[in-house]
Amino acid sequence: MRVTIGNQVQHYRTVTFDADRNAVGLIEQRLLPHAFRIVATRDYHETAAAIRDMIVRGAPAIAAAAAYGLAQGARAFRGQDASRFRRHVSAVRAELQAARPTAVDPVNSMNQVLAAMDGGGNVAERQDLALAAAEEFANQSVCECRRIGSQGVKLIRRGMRILTHCNAGWLACVDVGTATAPLYAAQAAGKSFHVFCDETRPRSQGATLTAWELAQQGISHQVIADNAAGHLMQRGEIDLVIVGSDRTLGRTGEIANKIGTYTKAVLAHRHGIPFYVAIPLSTIDWQLKSGFEIPIEERDEDEVLGAWGAPVHSKARSGGSGSGRRAYLRVANPTSGARNPGFDITPPELITGIITPLGIFRPKELDRIRSGRI
Amino acid sequence: MRVTIGNQVQHYRTVTFDADRNAVGLIEQRLLPHAFRIVATRDYHETAAAIRDMIVRGAPAIAAAAAYGLAQGARAFRGQDASRFRRHVSAVRAELQAARPTAVDPVNSMNQVLAAMDGGGNVAERQDLALAAAEEFANQSVCECRRIGSQGVKLIRRGMRILTHCNAGWLACVDVGTATAPLYAAQAAGKSFHVFCDETRPRSQGATLTAWELAQQGISHQVIADNAAGHLMQRGEIDLVIVGSDRTLGRTGEIANKIGTYTKAVLAHRHGIPFYVAIPLSTIDWQLKSGFEIPIEERDEDEVLGAWGAPVHSKARSGGSGSGRRAYLRVANPTSGARNPGFDITPPELITGIITPLGIFRPKELDRIRSGRI
Repeated sequence: MRVTIGNQVQHYRTVTFDADRNAVGLIEQRLLPHAFRIVATRDYHETAAAIRDMIVRGAPAIAAAAAYGLAQGARAFRGQDASRFRRHVSAVRAELQAARPTAVDPVNSMNQVLAAMDGGGNVAERQDLALAAAEEFANQSVCECRRIGSQGVKLIRRGMRILTHCNAGWLACVDVGTATAPLYAAQAAGKSFHVFCDETRPRSQGATLTAWELAQQGISHQVIADNAAGHLMQRGEIDLVIVGSDRTLGRTGEIANKIGTYTKAVLAHRHGIPFYVAIPLSTIDWQLKSGFEIPIEERDEDEVLGAWGAPVHSKARSGGSGSGRRAYLRVANPTSGARNPGFDITPPELITGIITPLGIFRPKELDRIRSGRI
Repeated sequence: MRVTIGNQVQHYRTVTFDADRNAVGLIEQRLLPHAFRIVATRDYHETAAAIRDMIVRGAPAIAAAAAYGLAQGARAFRGQDASRFRRHVSAVRAELQAARPTAVDPVNSMNQVLAAMDGGGNVAERQDLALAAAEEFANQSVCECRRIGSQGVKLIRRGMRILTHCNAGWLACVDVGTATAPLYAAQAAGKSFHVFCDETRPRSQGATLTAWELAQQGISHQVIADNAAGHLMQRGEIDLVIVGSDRTLGRTGEIANKIGTYTKAVLAHRHGIPFYVAIPLSTIDWQLKSGFEIPIEERDEDEVLGAWGAPVHSKARSGGSGSGRRAYLRVANPTSGARNPGFDITPPELITGIITPLGIFRPKELDRIRSGRI
């Protein structure tokens, strides 16, 4: 998407590849929204570290980073020995997979790259095929997000006030995003609307990443405390909710998404406000039979007990060109502990529809995708 | 309540009066939870400033501070001239009232002091009566909180997990608190239970003040992000919710309380979890006919866009004996704005009961208090 730095407007993807330098390019997301910087990983070890250290995050984005990382590692191999090459590629894959062991998307994206490599007759051909497959994966991912936008744009009417939670934006994908895709499509169609970004404590991805994205695209928006959405709905100030999903149960229509999503769904349901979930097909889990089977990660309590941000020395707003220096403050009582569940489960009866690249489905109708009845 | 500093355990009230020095003693709440300090205001100007600058906050607490401040101002008068004394007292009252112009509790508490002063035959007698009336007001306030505790304690069973929002604790009152009163009564009765403190963004009073209070009293508790309560309810980990109220509509049973209260009530209702509101009688408004008549204050957007806390240089927890130095971080995207409604309205159908010093009422039955049918 478009990023403005000073007077320069440029288009960026979250994850790119520089074939000449054999480098993966990544937006350094830990610095956002206080600074915008592109980092280039010089080898696959650095790419794995970038995934592990959250320079890049979001399932579709790390899937692309892993695919490019696998191509990067394969291309760094010197020699003609096919079996040594195969062992090398295995080691590359293992290291990239271990960088985010619970995620399934990088496994799938790397499998696509590996399958493509099988078509090569020698090391050099396989190296070329690896990069082509990684590029293909990234492009597919962008196309899928654009199709989510094409499907979802019809939900957005002029003047709507739309709530979103956490960041399911282009920063979590290669480009365009999932929950944001209908917004960007609506903007392109000339519709004006307003977005409320839930702050999304404890990690504040709504206040940091989503707000930054929307500001860069020039979309009218405001950050709200997670506590405020209920009040705004009560006063008739929210017309539509769109969120993303980390895992969508194809059998039941339940979704697992960032903690607080369930609360917004309950509130929207009470107020008769449409609640939509935007997903790429890769988040659909056809195996699990109940959301209660999804393990809910308990994260570090320091996330709840404090906050990360940029020191402010005046009220002047720097416009994102700051140093990106981030500091941690302890907000809570120093002798208190915290509970910090990272995700929650939203049941299908609270979900108006699921926006996919193939159409908008009722949550109980997702099975039509698997059975081809669409 | 009890406060431990180093090895010293001492009992404190939030607001006290030192007759010898003619000084109002206040817990410097802006330093909590990172430091505990008592400040003494040397004259009524300083007392008014302490109210204005939020050294003391919470309706019952500022009511007591204003009552003491009025006595402090009256006692500083030198001379015997009754009409000059009356003009002086009027000026004192006006300055104290202007320190928090929207609050009604200080007006009421100062009216009690003024009414008592009328019983004096000369300036000296009136000065003595002013102090006695202020002390009486503070003591009444504590008794009222204790009666809330006696009424509410029966709701708390051994092993319960109780959610509270914001701070309706002893720091908001002279002592004991409102929403916390049943907790402290249950502890005194030897019941063990666990409290989840909603962080309560954007000002984080749950993470700072309520967590500090509970830690000081040795009550098992954890801070949670405001987003997490829905998940915990879904998993059966919350048995009871108790919150305070800034204004309770006697005619309708609606309550106005800190932003996010409504959301917790909606969630509790969905999960069949009892939702109680603990109030002193002074929060009951018998005039308004609808919660929509209550103006909802829109506060400074910097509260939502950032966070206040103490810089942390190691993971060691200082136990509240720190310097109290607080810093502000900008969390959100620097070019984004925010909406920041401070309160929301919870309708009576979501409220299981209202815990008052006179008993626990269904929200629609509050009228029995006014009509004496209790």
